[in-house]
Amino acid sequence: MAQFINAKENLVTEAIEGTLRTSGGKLARLDGYPHIKVVVRADWDKSKVALVSGGGAGHEPAHVGFVGEGMLTAAVCGDVFASPSVDAVLAGILAVTGPAGCLLIVKNYTGDRLNFGLAAERARAFGLRVEMVIVADDIALPDVPQARGVAGTLFVHKIAGALAQAGENLDVVTKSALEVIENVASIGMSLDTCTVPGSPKEDRIEVGKAELGLGIHGESGIEVIDFVSARDAMGVVIDRLASQVKSGPKVALLNNLGGATPLEMAVLAEELMLSNIGSDICCMVGPAPLMTSLDMRGFSVSLLPVDADALALLRSPVGPHAWPLCLDTNPVEVKAIPDGLAPIKPIPSQNPQVAEFITKCCDIFIEAEVVLNGLDAKSGDGDTGSTLAGASRALKGAVDLLPLADHTQLYRAIGLELSQTMGGSSGVLLAIFFSAVGDASSSGQTMVEAFKSGMKRVQEVGGANIGDRTMIDALAPALEALPNGLAAAASAARAGADHTAKITKAKAGRASYISEDRLIGHNDPGAEAVALLFENLAD
Amino acid sequence: MAQFINAKENLVTEAIEGTLRTSGGKLARLDGYPHIKVVVRADWDKSKVALVSGGGAGHEPAHVGFVGEGMLTAAVCGDVFASPSVDAVLAGILAVTGPAGCLLIVKNYTGDRLNFGLAAERARAFGLRVEMVIVADDIALPDVPQARGVAGTLFVHKIAGALAQAGENLDVVTKSALEVIENVASIGMSLDTCTVPGSPKEDRIEVGKAELGLGIHGESGIEVIDFVSARDAMGVVIDRLASQVKSGPKVALLNNLGGATPLEMAVLAEELMLSNIGSDICCMVGPAPLMTSLDMRGFSVSLLPVDADALALLRSPVGPHAWPLCLDTNPVEVKAIPDGLAPIKPIPSQNPQVAEFITKCCDIFIEAEVVLNGLDAKSGDGDTGSTLAGASRALKGAVDLLPLADHTQLYRAIGLELSQTMGGSSGVLLAIFFSAVGDASSSGQTMVEAFKSGMKRVQEVGGANIGDRTMIDALAPALEALPNGLAAAASAARAGADHTAKITKAKAGRASYISEDRLIGHNDPGAEAVALLFENLAD
Repeated sequence: MAQFINAKENLVTEAIEGTLRTSGGKLARLDGYPHIKVVVRADWDKSKVALVSGGGAGHEPAHVGFVGEGMLTAAVCGDVFASPSVDAVLAGILAVTGPAGCLLIVKNYTGDRLNFGLAAERARAFGLRVEMVIVADDIALPDVPQARGVAGTLFVHKIAGALAQAGENLDVVTKSALEVIENVASIGMSLDTCTVPGSPKEDRIEVGKAELGLGIHGESGIEVIDFVSARDAMGVVIDRLASQVKSGPKVALLNNLGGATPLEMAVLAEELMLSNIGSDICCMVGPAPLMTSLDMRGFSVSLLPVDADALALLRSPVGPHAWPLCLDTNPVEVKAIPDGLAPIKPIPSQNPQVAEFITKCCDIFIEAEVVLNGLDAKSGDGDTGSTLAGASRALKGAVDLLPLADHTQLYRAIGLELSQTMGGSSGVLLAIFFSAVGDASSSGQTMVEAFKSGMKRVQEVGGANIGDRTMIDALAPALEALPNGLAAAASAARAGADHTAKITKAKAGRASYISEDRLIGHNDPGAEAVALLFENLAD
Repeated sequence: MAQFINAKENLVTEAIEGTLRTSGGKLARLDGYPHIKVVVRADWDKSKVALVSGGGAGHEPAHVGFVGEGMLTAAVCGDVFASPSVDAVLAGILAVTGPAGCLLIVKNYTGDRLNFGLAAERARAFGLRVEMVIVADDIALPDVPQARGVAGTLFVHKIAGALAQAGENLDVVTKSALEVIENVASIGMSLDTCTVPGSPKEDRIEVGKAELGLGIHGESGIEVIDFVSARDAMGVVIDRLASQVKSGPKVALLNNLGGATPLEMAVLAEELMLSNIGSDICCMVGPAPLMTSLDMRGFSVSLLPVDADALALLRSPVGPHAWPLCLDTNPVEVKAIPDGLAPIKPIPSQNPQVAEFITKCCDIFIEAEVVLNGLDAKSGDGDTGSTLAGASRALKGAVDLLPLADHTQLYRAIGLELSQTMGGSSGVLLAIFFSAVGDASSSGQTMVEAFKSGMKRVQEVGGANIGDRTMIDALAPALEALPNGLAAAASAARAGADHTAKITKAKAGRASYISEDRLIGHNDPGAEAVALLFENLAD
């Protein structure tokens, strides 16, 4: 699969440029591309403890996305999945470290430990105060003493960042970072591998399987399991995690490893809250992409037991928008459905003249069934006649139940009846037409004006204008002529309907998808129906 | 490919539940699952104009993610890619509309137009003031009169939302929405189709091709083009867009259609800013997933010409975190590399005794090359001896250039020399060791104390403790015994090194990946090197 990149070699520097250019001026970088890829806070004055993190690229928004007030001071970037060099880390440290010192937050991968470690030594040789903490939150391999650092690192960024922002000294900031590291636990699961730019995608995970306990560099999970459902998947993850964290209130960080959709992540959030530790989760960070593995269709859960102090630090506002906030979890609030959904049954009333008129209209459409079907077959699926006739039969049968003595209510009732007995778009459009006619009628418009209002609304909703080869081409001139009598209206409708046979470029409705030569010479069936109606009424 | 869902039928309701449960209490929903899926602001008091939008699911964060202060009042959700019913829309309108009325913001798809349109009629029959606008920003088919509504809809949500929030009346809010609709233009491009839950993925787009001008429901683009690079892709998109929008300052909305990685989106942001309309783009919304098409690896660009008023409305703060802010674009700020990256060349100084000692140490390692390689071959790739011997030869050759008369500078210089001549982790670890010894020495520690400080730092960075089958197993006891003389140190180192042959469970370094039976009976080569050094020095 191709990717939206120019060349693998420039991928990370170009991405950093794009990020900086759209950061609202809040981020800057150090000179020294391509070797030195360091993003720093543009407004940093070295007055407080600096926080430096980083590592290989491919984990966005980590780490550049978390540079800003209340989180990181600098992010040192390597190429995709490759540790940055000692020089790059050293440049980052030197650029942001003032008298208050600097804390390096390093994920537990050999390359990062060594390069950040040596850079720290070099920086100390300049007399700078530099501490380094190693995050090892992945519990995939519980016996390994050097667990990997994964998404739990974000908790360290946030809590240490809040303390540094508050002006705490390096010892306090470092101690809090170590406490988070001591207590946080994470594990991930994925349904597919990731696509490393420039490399073919590994088809390692079979359909129907999932890998449990993966790192964030495309390496295999510790275990392949059957994938049954989101619920099962979250259950397995929670089983592994629950025994590794202290009991009591926790914050959960639900991380999208890159390729899961927001819909899937929301379902996983629901399953996490419904899981057997759900009631312990007082706050949630995410679901969001935080520490990704390129486009991996997977997620990870990180759990951090918290007290009130930690919670306050996690909740404090930060500059970086990529931090998805740490929000209280809550039961779902369900509001009652508003009254009025059940359609108001009109109260039947009598008016023999109106009943006769409606019946006559219905008979006209019933009569026209075959003709209209034939016309529709030229440009559609040949059912316009049947649809109209069917609805007419239903309306005719229900005529005694209509509020025949009240025009406004009658129009609305006809709209409702048609929307229930006439399928598809036509039913809805006629329902809108009669509804709008009813509205207009109730506001004192004459019958012709009211019908024009209805037509206008149908045009708005359906998007059809005169000349678009629809029923409007007959209805509009008919309504225009109607004040001069039914015969004038019939004649105008007929002229309009016949004109549609010359319109070869339909612009609305289904005929807009049909080629010109199939349209020429045939009236639009909707327009023809209108013409037939007026002609027969005029007789 | 499997997805993290439970069942297609419950996907949208479960996702809504998960979203509400983690919304910090800001969102609620109406009763009536599964038919009515309406998310509303929990705090809404109907005192201002309500904004209702929605449509099929699969476009997250649209539309639920944009419900909140300053944007939507309610989102009416259908199933994936399916319009919500008239009843669902009506329920949403009735739930949030007060005397100030309601604006429906509808993307131009037939189902949405009809269902929202009829719901609006029904709501009007209740006496509510309801206006409806149809967004048709997709310029993929310039001649089609009913363009689709895509990501440009977000501009309508934001600008109308800001005005409604400010207390403007329905006419003003509607007029501003219509102005945005009149002026906004969007187009999308994708490298792959999307995976509709429950349906097999369509493999429509060949590798090396891209579709231009696609909607957000997996339908084909209007054109298949060769995909060359991110730059070319953005160039094509901008070519189509540029002629469709007014000249002058614009806001660009860079939308991830779902499956592009943040790295790719950042590269596209860079290309957008470098494109021939880049200088017109005063502000950017994104790059971010805003109006997605499930997991489609694609993007869209929407352009909106703006004046100062529109800009202020786009920039005003909102409740929904999914809105990625509208930030000023800016040139990249590049800060100079800090001084100190170029390693300080030590000033050579003379001390024949020290020179002789260093040379002797080097000779011991050169002598041990074959033995150490042999030990390493049992658990690794057999090059420990060669690596040490190579670095020793280099150090021996450079001995006259070292600051032999200044201990602190000497340690640091040895560290620097080793980090440059000795590859891999060993070189970095020894550089860290000597750097830390130099630091400790400069702060007045005795030689033994300084060496212990160096060892401590190596343990921190490398993660190795005593008993982990590393050089620490010989070095730690040797330094402990060193105050009693070289012979005592040698004897302690030997005991420590020999003990490593009994350690079958390596916990750090490469041997941690080797099975027990391959380790038993062989000394760790690093520990053996330390023992050999002390034994030969004691001689």
